[in-house]
Amino acid sequence: MDIHKLASQCKSAAIDMSALSSQIKDTALQNIIQSLKGSINLIIESNESDLEHAQRDHLDAPLLKRLKFDHAKILEACEGIASLIKLEDPVGKTICATQLDKGLELFKVSRPIGVIGVIFESRPDALVQIAALCLKSGNAVLLKGGSEASATNQILASLISRAGIESGLPDGWLGLLETRSDVDQMLKLETAVDLIIPRGSNAFVRYIMDNTVIPVLGHADGICHLYIDRFSDHKMAIDLSIDSKCQYVAVCNAIESILVHEAVAQDVLPTLKTKLEEKGVKIFGCNKTCAIVEVDAASAEDWKTEYLDYIVSIKVVRTLKEAIGHINCYGSGHTDVIVTQDKKRAIDFMDHVDTADAFWNCSSRFADGFRFGLGAEVGISTNKIHARGPVGLEGLMIYQWRLIGNGQMVKDYTGETGKPFTHKSLNKDFC
Amino acid sequence: MDIHKLASQCKSAAIDMSALSSQIKDTALQNIIQSLKGSINLIIESNESDLEHAQRDHLDAPLLKRLKFDHAKILEACEGIASLIKLEDPVGKTICATQLDKGLELFKVSRPIGVIGVIFESRPDALVQIAALCLKSGNAVLLKGGSEASATNQILASLISRAGIESGLPDGWLGLLETRSDVDQMLKLETAVDLIIPRGSNAFVRYIMDNTVIPVLGHADGICHLYIDRFSDHKMAIDLSIDSKCQYVAVCNAIESILVHEAVAQDVLPTLKTKLEEKGVKIFGCNKTCAIVEVDAASAEDWKTEYLDYIVSIKVVRTLKEAIGHINCYGSGHTDVIVTQDKKRAIDFMDHVDTADAFWNCSSRFADGFRFGLGAEVGISTNKIHARGPVGLEGLMIYQWRLIGNGQMVKDYTGETGKPFTHKSLNKDFC
Repeated sequence: MDIHKLASQCKSAAIDMSALSSQIKDTALQNIIQSLKGSINLIIESNESDLEHAQRDHLDAPLLKRLKFDHAKILEACEGIASLIKLEDPVGKTICATQLDKGLELFKVSRPIGVIGVIFESRPDALVQIAALCLKSGNAVLLKGGSEASATNQILASLISRAGIESGLPDGWLGLLETRSDVDQMLKLETAVDLIIPRGSNAFVRYIMDNTVIPVLGHADGICHLYIDRFSDHKMAIDLSIDSKCQYVAVCNAIESILVHEAVAQDVLPTLKTKLEEKGVKIFGCNKTCAIVEVDAASAEDWKTEYLDYIVSIKVVRTLKEAIGHINCYGSGHTDVIVTQDKKRAIDFMDHVDTADAFWNCSSRFADGFRFGLGAEVGISTNKIHARGPVGLEGLMIYQWRLIGNGQMVKDYTGETGKPFTHKSLNKDFC
Repeated sequence: MDIHKLASQCKSAAIDMSALSSQIKDTALQNIIQSLKGSINLIIESNESDLEHAQRDHLDAPLLKRLKFDHAKILEACEGIASLIKLEDPVGKTICATQLDKGLELFKVSRPIGVIGVIFESRPDALVQIAALCLKSGNAVLLKGGSEASATNQILASLISRAGIESGLPDGWLGLLETRSDVDQMLKLETAVDLIIPRGSNAFVRYIMDNTVIPVLGHADGICHLYIDRFSDHKMAIDLSIDSKCQYVAVCNAIESILVHEAVAQDVLPTLKTKLEEKGVKIFGCNKTCAIVEVDAASAEDWKTEYLDYIVSIKVVRTLKEAIGHINCYGSGHTDVIVTQDKKRAIDFMDHVDTADAFWNCSSRFADGFRFGLGAEVGISTNKIHARGPVGLEGLMIYQWRLIGNGQMVKDYTGETGKPFTHKSLNKDFC
């Protein structure tokens, strides 16, 4: 189908999606689970066909692994949907209420954003998860998966879309884009698409961000730091460095740089080096680091590199202020940690580091929607507006102002003899 | 000064601005008031020089009126700042708190966005107001005013910037751009500027929105509707139509179109026409309207026109659904009103009209930050993310996640023997 027609259908469906009852949405999610489970062999067959093509095209092993959507992964995706059903409906919540005057009441009510455009690489489970998140939050969705997963994506989109429509969702609530050129066209549809969520490699997300004026929820880089303060517990500092770097190196919330206060460098660096190297971590150090421990010298490039690997850069800093300056210069505003026993310095760090997640005496790896208890994770954002850090369903929400009166006119509240506003906070929900 | 240097100074100042105490910020606002009042003659002289140039250049009367910044307007601007001092500091509020585990506590804390780029036409009072709003909310600001007001803007920016710095604000917290080409350069500085707020004509705001990838807070159009339902109180419907259209025609929250349910058109339209014409309003009607009352026929263009004048278009609709469809098609998502005695239909309207302000039985003209009781108005937004409708100081805010532990590592919460998260909501503030 023509992308403009698809988007226009989706935009129109978004209106009806936003007004659905919680019951219809949860029934639809339940029916989607049943539909996926009922067609599990069909899904696996389609996925095997994608895998065959991918092998023939010599795709590399990590990509093949992400592409694979087997029995276990399908059931896991269904469990994800089941957990969404248990969450409260985020639509229609009264955020605040104010009496403007007697009989004139203002409500700020949560509403879905509208049409969410989701673009992801290979992983078919992303399609299932994001479609379910959009449904639960009353949004319509345009999806584009990796071409290597096209057969899997087609069967999944078709099953999910149909199960939704049969449960009372509007036609067009889920649209699947087929080609790369569809994506480029979607990125230009700023009147139809309200928010883009890209899922994939950094380069991929950067490409999306650079090629659309539609708001993008996501992060292109995760250059995270851990700063070991002069007043830190050294054992804790080293343990947290290891966990933040090595617990899982290929993720955005793993640290790439460790900053060490010069007053404790002599004491901390030798053990830190030993423990990191025990884990197989390659270290690049600044001049001062190299003067204390035998490691390779870091280049200017190292401070701005997201290794996503068993590699770390270490820099000795003279002051807390220098650490903050370094992070604000080279960090990506994702997650940054201070290890210190001094509360004032910890707060100073959090107040001055311009980052989504400012952590004190704990691992950077906690920066995650599930660990934060958000119930579901839409993504992690390094945006400075709307949503920042791990984003739950509320990232797919906006609000509407609803003013209820009985004929009030502004002319009666204007001028010297005009009625005053009461502006009294109300402790009640909309309708 | 070179715009890149100015922006880089401002970005660096934003870090310090975000960490200022409420006391320093409020003292700075107080000192700005004193500085403006102390230099009132200097300001008026500069403004008179701008006015002379403008008259020589034959600028039209409304523009000259906006440009004028006399004694009364200066004092009014100072009163605006004084009212800001009384508002609560929006920075550092704990939005929510969650225990992830014993001794591992997560806080979502309100923070300033960073660098706000403000571009406005003529009105010098806008400079004073927006600088004060940014200061109160801990943001740094880059300002560009109309070239016709350059002398006034220069003296205002210089007084405000200096009074701020003397009160403890960082150098560069307020930067003034001088030329139009500076603006075009600023629109490209997506790494330095976090949010753009344009103030001016629709065409001006549209230009800004079309020429930057930086998020823009504002609205290009205010195509607002009032729908008279079949179950409406006709007198109320006509009164609200007059107030919504005529109370002040040149503003974005005045209505441009009235939709009338066909079941009441025969009864409502003659009186509506008389009352509108008494106010000097020119009416363009659809075919059905023209069949009932003698008015000029509307063209297709009328439904998408923001007249901002004593002109209105009227359309007879067969159903509530048709009214909703018309508004979603032609409206600008700003403010739309239903007049009805039927609560179910009112909620149906609010649930389905994709607009920032959905009003029931009251005038569209209430869509305003001061009338809403927001304390201060940053602007009105038709965005679908971050902030929508009248925006108070919270539109200049984002949040930071702060996780406080005592050495917790993710490895201990991972795998089958991993500790569980408690995810307990905490009723406490950060630190």
